[in-house]
Amino acid sequence: MSINEEALSAHQKWDGKLDVVPKMQIDTRYDLALAYTPGVAEPCLAIADDPDRAYGLTIKSNTVAVVTDGSAVLGLGNIGALAALPVMEGKCALFKRFADVNAFPICLDTQDVDGIVDACVKLAPVFGGINLEDISAPRCFEVEARLNDLLDIPVFHDDQHGTAIVVLSALINALRFVGKHAASARVVVNGAGAAGIAIARLLVAYGFQNVIMCDKQGILHSGQTGMNEAQRAMLSLTNPQDEAGTLVDAIQGADIFVGVSAPGVLTEAMVRTMASDAIVFAMANPTPEIFPDEAKRAGAAVVGTGRSDFPNQINNVIAFPGIFKGALEARAERITEEMKLAAAEALAQLVSEEELSADFVMPDPFDPRIAPAVAKAVADRAQRR
Amino acid sequence: MSINEEALSAHQKWDGKLDVVPKMQIDTRYDLALAYTPGVAEPCLAIADDPDRAYGLTIKSNTVAVVTDGSAVLGLGNIGALAALPVMEGKCALFKRFADVNAFPICLDTQDVDGIVDACVKLAPVFGGINLEDISAPRCFEVEARLNDLLDIPVFHDDQHGTAIVVLSALINALRFVGKHAASARVVVNGAGAAGIAIARLLVAYGFQNVIMCDKQGILHSGQTGMNEAQRAMLSLTNPQDEAGTLVDAIQGADIFVGVSAPGVLTEAMVRTMASDAIVFAMANPTPEIFPDEAKRAGAAVVGTGRSDFPNQINNVIAFPGIFKGALEARAERITEEMKLAAAEALAQLVSEEELSADFVMPDPFDPRIAPAVAKAVADRAQRR
Repeated sequence: MSINEEALSAHQKWDGKLDVVPKMQIDTRYDLALAYTPGVAEPCLAIADDPDRAYGLTIKSNTVAVVTDGSAVLGLGNIGALAALPVMEGKCALFKRFADVNAFPICLDTQDVDGIVDACVKLAPVFGGINLEDISAPRCFEVEARLNDLLDIPVFHDDQHGTAIVVLSALINALRFVGKHAASARVVVNGAGAAGIAIARLLVAYGFQNVIMCDKQGILHSGQTGMNEAQRAMLSLTNPQDEAGTLVDAIQGADIFVGVSAPGVLTEAMVRTMASDAIVFAMANPTPEIFPDEAKRAGAAVVGTGRSDFPNQINNVIAFPGIFKGALEARAERITEEMKLAAAEALAQLVSEEELSADFVMPDPFDPRIAPAVAKAVADRAQRR
Repeated sequence: MSINEEALSAHQKWDGKLDVVPKMQIDTRYDLALAYTPGVAEPCLAIADDPDRAYGLTIKSNTVAVVTDGSAVLGLGNIGALAALPVMEGKCALFKRFADVNAFPICLDTQDVDGIVDACVKLAPVFGGINLEDISAPRCFEVEARLNDLLDIPVFHDDQHGTAIVVLSALINALRFVGKHAASARVVVNGAGAAGIAIARLLVAYGFQNVIMCDKQGILHSGQTGMNEAQRAMLSLTNPQDEAGTLVDAIQGADIFVGVSAPGVLTEAMVRTMASDAIVFAMANPTPEIFPDEAKRAGAAVVGTGRSDFPNQINNVIAFPGIFKGALEARAERITEEMKLAAAEALAQLVSEEELSADFVMPDPFDPRIAPAVAKAVADRAQRR
């Protein structure tokens, strides 16, 4: 059977990938009286008196909503809320598996920004954080910004920030490997959607000073028309010389290519025009912007993709579980740029000098040190506010 | 320690009463590929193609939302969404413990009917059913009716219908014990809120022909002012002689008293005016309308309360888990009056002739036959539509 057939068959067997289970035994009338009536009245009153006590007395302490509107699901596009549920269940399963964080899927039957924001605000009491997932740009920017304004729990769009954190961590180590520095590296981010914009922002926040963004129209520059608000805002952070041109122009002399775009858009010929010891992260899924063997043949020193069947899989699973775990532990109201940078640095540091190689710039996703290290870095930075 | 202190201490130890856990092992990259990307794309596409396949491929098959607005929580009143969370978590724990149904608490930060309905409609894709809980009357009637119109999953307000089902099951057995019949019994339901109205409706649907409802103003009759719409609708189902008067008048010659009202409102003197072999269910919590020893001294043959420390505890926990289990198994779009009657009859039948006594008209809540029997009765009736 193919992986697709295997996966469908496994999903039929599972009949839902999550169980919601009580933490306590309920075997006697006394157990019932403690966990339900009349005993439950006491924690209710404590929280009514001081809402902060919900942390410590309820699931709010350690529970995240994984919220989608089904508008931009994997590479499948706008398949709607119900059809997105298998992805959200999977995400929730990873939260538990990798960081012991409880997560529950919320698939909203609306694709209207006001509708999504309104539903999340109403839902918020139960949750300690909200992970936005697979909501299409540019609506995702407004949803996240408005929710972070309205709520006192962290709201984090993983397709943007989780991706950005993992890319930055991999870049830190790739630069370590080739002996270059962020401040002087020329970076081309191809794809100016939600992920590309978040990556560029985080790279600049980290200290990259020469980031060029491209989309299908070429380099984002002041003369380009048809940009959305989020893209326009990137002009003040990226492309310091206000260069114009195509991806072919942008890539010449670049040290780093980060692709969150489309299959095959980076050719061997283009990679040959990059600086020596080039770094190529080609993350289009399932078919990357360039295959690793091609990029290496053209001289790239480090190559990463989104795929598990090549080295250096750039996979959010090493970031989001620990990030929320840390934010929950610190009871952070926001996940700030500083916390994201700390997470990326903590991830990078998990690869020792001895392990670091062209094919190993990120820790293995099953490395049990990952979530605790990320959580600690995030919580420490949160508490410094 | 008192039960209240014990319960608070237990809640602190639990730090949330629910865990959300994956059903599968995720220990290898292949496990990740099956449960998450790329494998998850296949069930997503199957559901996008045929939404019915969400049943069988996702948690929708076996997951209930326990939804509240925190407006009428236990005997605590309007404590709000967040403070209601310990109750909703407890309810979810019971769903799993008693019927292996997954349930997740949804505490909505709105007490507006439109707001509650709108949030539930948006949330519905993930769930196979909605259990409304602790929403105050008369808003609860409109919320439930509108949601049942708008959604193709069952929406069931447990404070109304769960209570009604358990009361009816206990009455069936109490009548069996004293040798009386529903059709000829005079029943007084004291308390004309959500629970009282639902009880009266279900008793009439079962075949009781002489049900009198009382509230603080006395017997509900055509001349009474200040009734809400739901109470007014009861005039065509109850009080066939259109009697007026107080609870004292109503109770004279009654065979059955069902109290969902206030502590101490039924006196020994009043019970003495009831028919012989009277049945008294005094369910005000925690202090009943009359204590069992008083009611028995005044001649009552069967007495039940809401408390676990007296015989015949009238407790919804014997109904709602099996009801949703049956509705989910049958993929019922509604929980109809017929399904409720079937559930009550199935519950009553679990008490054998040998077991039946004045102090045992309902099965023990930990009797493992309960949820399967109720589920089967409900599912069988659903499929007959």
